[in-house]
Amino acid sequence: MRKVGVIGIGCTKVGEHWATPLRDLFAEAALLALDDAGIDKIESIYVGNMLSAHTQKQEHLGALMADNIGMPGVQAIKVEAACGSGGIAVHEGFKAVASGLVDFVMVGGVEKMTDISTPEITTALMMAENREYSAFSGITFVGLNALCSRLYMETYEVKADEMMGFPVNDHINAVNNPNAQYPFKITVERAIESAMVADPIHLYECCGIGDGAAVAILCPLEKAKKINKPVIEVSASATATNVLNLYERDDLLDFAATRRAVNQAYSMANIDKKDVDVLEVHDAFSIVGVLSLEALGFAEKGVGARFAAEGEIAIDGDIPTNTMGGLKARGHPIGATGVYQIVELVTQLRGEAGKNQVKDAEIGLAQNIGGVDSTSIIHVLRRR
Amino acid sequence: MRKVGVIGIGCTKVGEHWATPLRDLFAEAALLALDDAGIDKIESIYVGNMLSAHTQKQEHLGALMADNIGMPGVQAIKVEAACGSGGIAVHEGFKAVASGLVDFVMVGGVEKMTDISTPEITTALMMAENREYSAFSGITFVGLNALCSRLYMETYEVKADEMMGFPVNDHINAVNNPNAQYPFKITVERAIESAMVADPIHLYECCGIGDGAAVAILCPLEKAKKINKPVIEVSASATATNVLNLYERDDLLDFAATRRAVNQAYSMANIDKKDVDVLEVHDAFSIVGVLSLEALGFAEKGVGARFAAEGEIAIDGDIPTNTMGGLKARGHPIGATGVYQIVELVTQLRGEAGKNQVKDAEIGLAQNIGGVDSTSIIHVLRRR
Repeated sequence: MRKVGVIGIGCTKVGEHWATPLRDLFAEAALLALDDAGIDKIESIYVGNMLSAHTQKQEHLGALMADNIGMPGVQAIKVEAACGSGGIAVHEGFKAVASGLVDFVMVGGVEKMTDISTPEITTALMMAENREYSAFSGITFVGLNALCSRLYMETYEVKADEMMGFPVNDHINAVNNPNAQYPFKITVERAIESAMVADPIHLYECCGIGDGAAVAILCPLEKAKKINKPVIEVSASATATNVLNLYERDDLLDFAATRRAVNQAYSMANIDKKDVDVLEVHDAFSIVGVLSLEALGFAEKGVGARFAAEGEIAIDGDIPTNTMGGLKARGHPIGATGVYQIVELVTQLRGEAGKNQVKDAEIGLAQNIGGVDSTSIIHVLRRR
Repeated sequence: MRKVGVIGIGCTKVGEHWATPLRDLFAEAALLALDDAGIDKIESIYVGNMLSAHTQKQEHLGALMADNIGMPGVQAIKVEAACGSGGIAVHEGFKAVASGLVDFVMVGGVEKMTDISTPEITTALMMAENREYSAFSGITFVGLNALCSRLYMETYEVKADEMMGFPVNDHINAVNNPNAQYPFKITVERAIESAMVADPIHLYECCGIGDGAAVAILCPLEKAKKINKPVIEVSASATATNVLNLYERDDLLDFAATRRAVNQAYSMANIDKKDVDVLEVHDAFSIVGVLSLEALGFAEKGVGARFAAEGEIAIDGDIPTNTMGGLKARGHPIGATGVYQIVELVTQLRGEAGKNQVKDAEIGLAQNIGGVDSTSIIHVLRRR
């Protein structure tokens, strides 16, 4: 199996891109990534996306994106795993390079959520769950996460203010990210005073609805070394699933897909969690950030919320997390998020993160999930 | 890169499975394939599907199918390339095994089209094309193919009866396929007298709308050799794209994606078209079968229709094609079709095709496309 490197990254600002068609949003990120890599040809494209059938009545995104960036003819494939679609695009691109079948692969994610109304998006997001059971019951996606949050808070006697570690941290970090959707600070007080969306989840514990695209270029590590940039290796790419229906899970507070995938990833990259310098966590809701942190091994069960609230996930904390704003403040354009994480880790490992730079960052880990951790994708990147 | 084999196959009958949920349709084929392979564990699942967001308001099919067949925890990924989604699932599974990352991979396709009305399906199928250009013009998918058919017939002075080679052949072969949607013979006369759907395409030149699922199990060839079955190797797996918008193509009658992919596949499998004993062609419409045959190299440009009409694609003809009924008569449950082709080729190469057996079949080739050959996926299977 060949080793794999990242040689180019690009992304759009997350926001409301009403005037930009889906394909052009992708192209914007794709051209930035090609330019960053200093190449103008690739052999294969993976596009991560969840909602385009619903939001744009568009499928076949592989061929569409290849054609639109002026590369009809190349391999082009859409992949989907709900909010984990972007991570899966990176994972499949990794396999393609590792297998030896192709050398230069574009892995991207794109989502345009603001083309349809918020109630419609709320319905569409439930396509991540088992339609004929969970969705037909009338519960929404935030509602499912609220069940987990309520159970967590009661089990571990966690107060509302202790749940605000992730949103407050993300908003601080987003201020210095020109591509962030919400680049402003919030306080714990403001978060607690924000509207209750699904008890006990407040508005400021939820990621927003936004449009965005992110792209990375992968190639064999040996070829990456010949490019005049810090060499970044994809040391591990792993994915796993969990029981889809929450009501069938043994333990609602165990993110088992993340736990499985990260164990594979640590083994594959031959590292321990202590080796990770910078972390990207899929905090679609604050509870998701907390349970992810625990499943990844950075906090013991029941301790994740306080760990985050006490500043241990800050850039100068124990494990710098979501240094560009995370899902809450950089934004969460569903199918693109997993690739934004890679773009941001590469920025850190190259030492190009400006005011948010984590000193001497050498190893980064990204966790991207689909559903309530029904799918999890873990990537470990390393400066070589 | 490791060599890859197929050790298990399974499929449902193509038809109207109103009472069966999408996930159970997949499970039916999956369990048959596992049983055929004689294994009860796999590491990874690829699910090809195009329309479930539209027809079932369901995404995240990877995690859903893994959970539903009792394997939560495994890797599970949905892939999409319009009508080529099934072929892409096989292609990604091939890469996964070839890379060395996983050993036992389930590749499947599933589609339930009859849950919504025919006008709705007609609209949904246009998601294969560029929504903001082709689809907004009001043309349907059969309409796009009618443009190609008209141009072909005028350019090469082909009469309507000469376009009926594929449908007549498919319906003859479907009679002996218990899983076929339309297992009855038709004549050229009946085809010409059938309703005009989009001039010059008659009803009997069009595949129907149906539900179905097909699954194959892949593993390293070395492991396949240890199983008590004829050993079938996946000698080549290749994919390519073409300009998506028909109005931007240099030559409407050149299936360039298929041409590119098959050249890669011949090279990868180290064979020539003369070596192919049995062929699966993506004949969603008779013109698509004809242009595919030409792009694959089995007939010169302008000759494909007459080649087929003269019986050269019959089981006892020059190149036995669509021996189980093809898209026209076995049926075309969109995202499943590419995997049905693999199931049927394996059946032939194992010598288990009964009355439709191609004598001494050793090498089979399958061509699965998305859109009007905007994506093409080619697989070469070989008995070892």
